[in-house]
Amino acid sequence: MKALVYHGPGQKALETRPKPQIEAPGDAIVKLVKTTICGTDLHILKGDVATCAPGRILGHEGVGIIDSVGAGVTAFRPGDRVLISCISSCGKCDYCRRGLYSHCTTGGWILGNEIDGTQAEYVRTPHADTSLYRVPAGADEEALVMLSDILPTGFECGVLNGKVEPGSTVAIVGAGPIGLAALLTAQFYAPAEIIMVDLDDNRLDVARRFGATHTINSADGKAAEAVKALTGGIGVDTAIEAVGIPATFLLCEDIVAPGGVIANVGVHGVKVDLHLERLWAHNITITTRLVDTVTTPMLLKTVQSKKLDPLQLITHRFTLDQIIDAYDTFSRAADTKALKVIISA
Amino acid sequence: MKALVYHGPGQKALETRPKPQIEAPGDAIVKLVKTTICGTDLHILKGDVATCAPGRILGHEGVGIIDSVGAGVTAFRPGDRVLISCISSCGKCDYCRRGLYSHCTTGGWILGNEIDGTQAEYVRTPHADTSLYRVPAGADEEALVMLSDILPTGFECGVLNGKVEPGSTVAIVGAGPIGLAALLTAQFYAPAEIIMVDLDDNRLDVARRFGATHTINSADGKAAEAVKALTGGIGVDTAIEAVGIPATFLLCEDIVAPGGVIANVGVHGVKVDLHLERLWAHNITITTRLVDTVTTPMLLKTVQSKKLDPLQLITHRFTLDQIIDAYDTFSRAADTKALKVIISA
Amino acid sequence: MKALVYHGPGQKALETRPKPQIEAPGDAIVKLVKTTICGTDLHILKGDVATCAPGRILGHEGVGIIDSVGAGVTAFRPGDRVLISCISSCGKCDYCRRGLYSHCTTGGWILGNEIDGTQAEYVRTPHADTSLYRVPAGADEEALVMLSDILPTGFECGVLNGKVEPGSTVAIVGAGPIGLAALLTAQFYAPAEIIMVDLDDNRLDVARRFGATHTINSADGKAAEAVKALTGGIGVDTAIEAVGIPATFLLCEDIVAPGGVIANVGVHGVKVDLHLERLWAHNITITTRLVDTVTTPMLLKTVQSKKLDPLQLITHRFTLDQIIDAYDTFSRAADTKALKVIISA
Amino acid sequence: MKALVYHGPGQKALETRPKPQIEAPGDAIVKLVKTTICGTDLHILKGDVATCAPGRILGHEGVGIIDSVGAGVTAFRPGDRVLISCISSCGKCDYCRRGLYSHCTTGGWILGNEIDGTQAEYVRTPHADTSLYRVPAGADEEALVMLSDILPTGFECGVLNGKVEPGSTVAIVGAGPIGLAALLTAQFYAPAEIIMVDLDDNRLDVARRFGATHTINSADGKAAEAVKALTGGIGVDTAIEAVGIPATFLLCEDIVAPGGVIANVGVHGVKVDLHLERLWAHNITITTRLVDTVTTPMLLKTVQSKKLDPLQLITHRFTLDQIIDAYDTFSRAADTKALKVIISA
Repeated sequence: MKALVYHGPGQKALETRPKPQIEAPGDAIVKLVKTTICGTDLHILKGDVATCAPGRILGHEGVGIIDSVGAGVTAFRPGDRVLISCISSCGKCDYCRRGLYSHCTTGGWILGNEIDGTQAEYVRTPHADTSLYRVPAGADEEALVMLSDILPTGFECGVLNGKVEPGSTVAIVGAGPIGLAALLTAQFYAPAEIIMVDLDDNRLDVARRFGATHTINSADGKAAEAVKALTGGIGVDTAIEAVGIPATFLLCEDIVAPGGVIANVGVHGVKVDLHLERLWAHNITITTRLVDTVTTPMLLKTVQSKKLDPLQLITHRFTLDQIIDAYDTFSRAADTKALKVIISA
Repeated sequence: MKALVYHGPGQKALETRPKPQIEAPGDAIVKLVKTTICGTDLHILKGDVATCAPGRILGHEGVGIIDSVGAGVTAFRPGDRVLISCISSCGKCDYCRRGLYSHCTTGGWILGNEIDGTQAEYVRTPHADTSLYRVPAGADEEALVMLSDILPTGFECGVLNGKVEPGSTVAIVGAGPIGLAALLTAQFYAPAEIIMVDLDDNRLDVARRFGATHTINSADGKAAEAVKALTGGIGVDTAIEAVGIPATFLLCEDIVAPGGVIANVGVHGVKVDLHLERLWAHNITITTRLVDTVTTPMLLKTVQSKKLDPLQLITHRFTLDQIIDAYDTFSRAADTKALKVIISA
Repeated sequence: MKALVYHGPGQKALETRPKPQIEAPGDAIVKLVKTTICGTDLHILKGDVATCAPGRILGHEGVGIIDSVGAGVTAFRPGDRVLISCISSCGKCDYCRRGLYSHCTTGGWILGNEIDGTQAEYVRTPHADTSLYRVPAGADEEALVMLSDILPTGFECGVLNGKVEPGSTVAIVGAGPIGLAALLTAQFYAPAEIIMVDLDDNRLDVARRFGATHTINSADGKAAEAVKALTGGIGVDTAIEAVGIPATFLLCEDIVAPGGVIANVGVHGVKVDLHLERLWAHNITITTRLVDTVTTPMLLKTVQSKKLDPLQLITHRFTLDQIIDAYDTFSRAADTKALKVIISA
Repeated sequence: MKALVYHGPGQKALETRPKPQIEAPGDAIVKLVKTTICGTDLHILKGDVATCAPGRILGHEGVGIIDSVGAGVTAFRPGDRVLISCISSCGKCDYCRRGLYSHCTTGGWILGNEIDGTQAEYVRTPHADTSLYRVPAGADEEALVMLSDILPTGFECGVLNGKVEPGSTVAIVGAGPIGLAALLTAQFYAPAEIIMVDLDDNRLDVARRFGATHTINSADGKAAEAVKALTGGIGVDTAIEAVGIPATFLLCEDIVAPGGVIANVGVHGVKVDLHLERLWAHNITITTRLVDTVTTPMLLKTVQSKKLDPLQLITHRFTLDQIIDAYDTFSRAADTKALKVIISA
């Protein structure tokens, strides 16, 4: 089969690889219909993700058709159309019992990282019963690809952890695909204001179209003052960090109101300064989270009932044969205005 | 009247000052019966608290008798015996409505800081109706002094924010009075393990007597390994920081389990390193909090029903005339083994 | 001044009464600008509310201007424009501290019930600091009248107690003003389906316009089957009872899904059957609530940010001189299609 | 193998039956070490449980040793010692994902009800990976039998649903094994008062020994007055119904304070009167629940850390050969003073 293979920092290739086989009773083999590329795939290609060894097929998102299942799989049969979660969860370990699927002792984020992933014609998915979701009749499968990772990430790590609520004020720092996913799902809770902060005017335009009430280009280094000015000098109830560098986390420290939350979504490569000399008495909460995808069933319902339109996030479409071009387009987002790209297998 | 007055860094004196007067309709004048000294008073004397100007009467804890009340006070009359909360709350502003009394726009921690405090024969307490609590019949008033600050601080900032629950594992870093207050109130929730970390063996002995299941002297720099060894390598569900320096906060970062909470109680003077390059995917929560004293009614009930014995925290007793000695004893805790000192007015 | 006075069952009159005076330090006298009539006023006129004695000025909703304040009032001054909450709360008692303003030991629902109300030129409001809310600059005052009672009632007793959440299914039994208030505020949480049940096709038309995804006329006695058919046979996550009779509560028992909530809003005159022989193992929650109006600040923010448009609820307008006509129009809602009527004082 | 078989109302026999076999990939066969009898088994024998057909082996509690497992079982191997949960949960269906194991679409309470149970030498347990729990090293296995049903039932349905908290007041109506299990686990949360109500003075004596702060014999019909007298006329924050008849539920309606919770644990055979004409404005919550056993891991930790001593509940011990005697002793609890009986297989 065709597959996009990682060969070490800066190296990738579309190659022919053997079709995967069932290895454990809980496995399923899924024939991909649609997949996509994640910002994390670019991190891997930079060599930032030590757990991903050269030779790995990348990709942890997608929709497909069950090809075969192991002896222990009871929820799916060949021919079933399924959404693949970026997080594999056994449903049995202490972490899974508590909804911390991201820390499943035999799962977590392993697809396209510790085991071969979805940017291929077929993928082996461990713990299939608890890591795949049936595609609802009549659903748009490209829309559902957005539910593999980006929408649960924005929603769980940003909106739920950030305790967005009716009438509250929210700032989202970073208007990339993840920040925009947080923006779309924050609106489930009718906050009064959603302020979007980014350096890219195009993405801020998109944010306004997606429902942001205010946008701030932080290029002038005065974003904190601008947020304070929009919130009566108090700051925001929820600050969502969706970039992953010290400067944007510090901005969140500066703009969070007493009693507020900083919900970190960004993938950080270095430590940040936490100004406890000021914040110890500020009654704030800071959360971190690798997405658990526990809200996938809820998000499926919001898509089916048209409260959420994931198609807005898709800007480009390719075939698997064109995946090298897809990577190029996705990685030059400032030029190409790419948000999410769909790859048809 | 006699009062302990702050005269700038390192300077204090027991002096004669005029008895305070009602200044606003919500004020009460309270004749002190018992007061105490807080670690924060020592911070002020080091010059660390910019809001506290020279000339200020110190103290923000105590039990007393209502001497007079302003025209707007309806809950108390002269002669009523009351517990004085360290936090003054108007009960009306947006913060007070949300239970964030610490950020009351006309209150918060002002006693013995921005206005004269309780280490005196009389004190003026603003927002009396919502900042004083009636002493229950038959209550031990020395015990109640522990409810002005230290017990709600340990409970709200440490135990409640830390989400201690039955069967969970807790580490408390710092076995001073605040850490011990967290230890006592953590036991309301029947955690499986409470591990106490400190450098002072005497305080660790006290901690064991107060209910710690394990103690660790961190002098050897191996406290993180020791906590991991006690928790099957996973770390603790709740790490309570009760010191206020970078090293102890970092220890909390090292020992918190995935899905766990770091509840900061310590008063920090400098920033700390937050290792988001590791913790971003660790699904943790970090909280900061200046005590709100919203749980004072709950804590009064636990004292009355003997689920909590605050008297254990009291090691020394003085009169107001001896308050300079009391400060000396309290400030040399490592030598004197002082926890909390009671001062009878 | 002119005032609408209750004279026992079936008896009311527009009369001249003395202007009220400050009686306690926390009182304010408010000159009414706009008021309205509540379904509860009709209950009083039927003689159903024993606490409301003949001679009482009715009304517990309105917007007005502060005329004078008692010595203890600090938040308002004469000339301030204010929203009057239907619930008076002292902000000091144990119930108020816990957010149970409805059970304030010296307040609760007393306006137009135990003390004179708002259907008059002036009203005395006890506990003014914690029972009045400043009208935001530029706000539509007629819209704000809907925040005195009906919107917090639908929101707190129905939506919040009912735990409406993104993707969930909701049935609201009763499409009168309160049911419609629940419908409007349920949409803060992006539920997948909101099914409205009533006997009046006009009100069901209004419900569809207000955002109901399905409507069911229950005249045929088959509403339970219809709700089950719309929810895959499972029933709804949230059933909001907004009528107040046994039949509608029983319908809620029949349609609530395992794990779901019945949030009672209706004012009941007789007991109902609770089918515990079936429901004991159904893992449901039933809530009752007299509105606390703790969410008034939150609702004000949703109105100011245009997430909520209360004007939709207003169908008719009268002057205080025409209040007898206003009662007639409001009480014959099936004919007049009245929802809420505004009375300008 | 030997097994206790139900033969219709009033009929049971200790018989020889074939050893069960693996039927599905998720099954395990467990060799029983210890089992017990539940009040529900007596209900079945009265003919009250329609789902339990004649010919069924009774019993849904026990500790045993894994004899064999199906192809899909990954968490257990032959020889593992396990606790058997009374609730079978697949861990995959919508209900299981939400923690509603009791409503698992292919599980729930099926053992000793819809399929053969644990009062036998061997039992087949479906969904073994998510319905069995490893016995911790050194654990007392008789104590763990109390974790199959009775302790999670008292804890989840009574204490958690009842929102018991530090300083709160609790009444438990019914001092049978389930009420006593609620009593033991309520103490995890340090409530100020736990009032136990029953008709049997022996059980009330036991309750005092187990930690009740007050006991009331309700034989005189004045229990409501007595509870009110003990709570300053207000009633209790939490009323736990642990009997299952209309009179005891009505008592809970009479004693619950405004803002309080009635947590129903009792298995009801007939409907009850819900006095909404009084309670609609009382701001209460009523919960029902078939135990989910989601807290089994938590309870195991409380037992291992000696916060909970289940052995207190065991009054008699029998062998499987003596199980008819065991039923006799357990069913005549008023005479025999039996709480829980252990049966060694």
